[in-house]
Amino acid sequence: MCELLGMSANVPTDIHFSFTGLMQRGGRTGPHKDGWGIAFYEGRGLRLFQDPVASCESEVAKMVQHYLIKSQVVIGHIRHANVGKVALVNTHPFVRELWGQHWCFAHNGQLSEFNPGPGFYRPVGDTDSEAAFCDLLSRIRTHFPDRVTGETLLPHLLDACASYRTRGVFNCLLSNGEWLFSFCSTKLAQITRRAPFGPAQLKDAELTVDFKAETTPDDVVTVLATEPLTDNEQWHTHQPGEWTLWRHGECVARGQVE
Amino acid sequence: MCELLGMSANVPTDIHFSFTGLMQRGGRTGPHKDGWGIAFYEGRGLRLFQDPVASCESEVAKMVQHYLIKSQVVIGHIRHANVGKVALVNTHPFVRELWGQHWCFAHNGQLSEFNPGPGFYRPVGDTDSEAAFCDLLSRIRTHFPDRVTGETLLPHLLDACASYRTRGVFNCLLSNGEWLFSFCSTKLAQITRRAPFGPAQLKDAELTVDFKAETTPDDVVTVLATEPLTDNEQWHTHQPGEWTLWRHGECVARGQVE
Repeated sequence: MCELLGMSANVPTDIHFSFTGLMQRGGRTGPHKDGWGIAFYEGRGLRLFQDPVASCESEVAKMVQHYLIKSQVVIGHIRHANVGKVALVNTHPFVRELWGQHWCFAHNGQLSEFNPGPGFYRPVGDTDSEAAFCDLLSRIRTHFPDRVTGETLLPHLLDACASYRTRGVFNCLLSNGEWLFSFCSTKLAQITRRAPFGPAQLKDAELTVDFKAETTPDDVVTVLATEPLTDNEQWHTHQPGEWTLWRHGECVARGQVE
Repeated sequence: MCELLGMSANVPTDIHFSFTGLMQRGGRTGPHKDGWGIAFYEGRGLRLFQDPVASCESEVAKMVQHYLIKSQVVIGHIRHANVGKVALVNTHPFVRELWGQHWCFAHNGQLSEFNPGPGFYRPVGDTDSEAAFCDLLSRIRTHFPDRVTGETLLPHLLDACASYRTRGVFNCLLSNGEWLFSFCSTKLAQITRRAPFGPAQLKDAELTVDFKAETTPDDVVTVLATEPLTDNEQWHTHQPGEWTLWRHGECVARGQVE
């Protein structure tokens, strides 16, 4: 299995703290040593860093940790390979263009016998995850050739997620830069940080941050992760079937499918 | 205007030497300070690094220079902005998926009044370059919904390039990972290095490499650049209308349109 990391914020925010925690799980405090990737939206642009090696030993990961990238939407992933060999082409997150926007997707889980017919989008690699992403975007494109809001899209997203879930485990994060969507099939946790900010202590590394010193009183930052990244804060654990839609750090819709 | 860098090789080759030369032109020995990008094919995967700042000062560029990435096809670009503000979203190379392959494109030049109708692919940013790339891929997709060889594609590529060229300056590099295509509208140079290898001296930095020590006798590596990157080797200067198609470092087709 793999681990997911997502962020939605109302101001460009650096995710250095959470990223540092996640990277430890890629071969040091966790077994997810088969590659990692992280995508940062920067305006309409998307900055993607990936490496098909253990994140705790990756040169690219070290660079990302030291280079201050501020973003309002981030999707990250560390991989423990099941379907598809360890290779750059099989490394999450995956990216495609739809409606003149970069869409980004990462998946935690495994789908069995998932062979969708050829759609508009085709996988480049061998993972069930990229196949599901391509199928999802092809479905969206068929229903909505032109741009609609995340709220309008929701019923179709949920139908698709519910159908993938019948094939196995399907925890995912999806964004087009405007919003961040999550679906929990088995495991996902979330925390929203806002004033009054306090200190946070990583579970996986000896690192504490005082968010009060790093933020302004109006900042709202939500972080989603497969497992809580800190051990002195209260994370909300998502239930199987629970989904959320985030914009500017705030939850704009949430619910649970059967 | 901008500068292009391309590489096609028969073995995974590191482009550190040429990249170092190009990066100097991004704000030090050249005026191309509005961003840079480089894409490396790694098997079917594509590794893209970009930064909308001067390459000679970019932290990401420093990392790429120190991190040994070996590839058989590379496309790089440094930008001197004309259409589209300086932003990540307007930074070359651009990437889209077609036929389950990552396609990569970089452009040097400017097209005037270029507003193609909406096709399969839509630009995310504001550049004429990305609009031309999307138009080109949409044309290809219309003619060839499924994978064909570079040779089969050529007449359509050349038609498209010839039509863009009527709108302005259109020097470009394009690849799907299998082959590298170039089109010269005004300026492009190329060198193919093979045994017996010798030393090369960068024009833009005090750096010499002895390719004999870095290669095996069977290596064939072609580098394309807007202007020659070394001053002790014989580069071939492309003529207006000249195009080339490369596979594994060797030219598999070349010609000139009117």
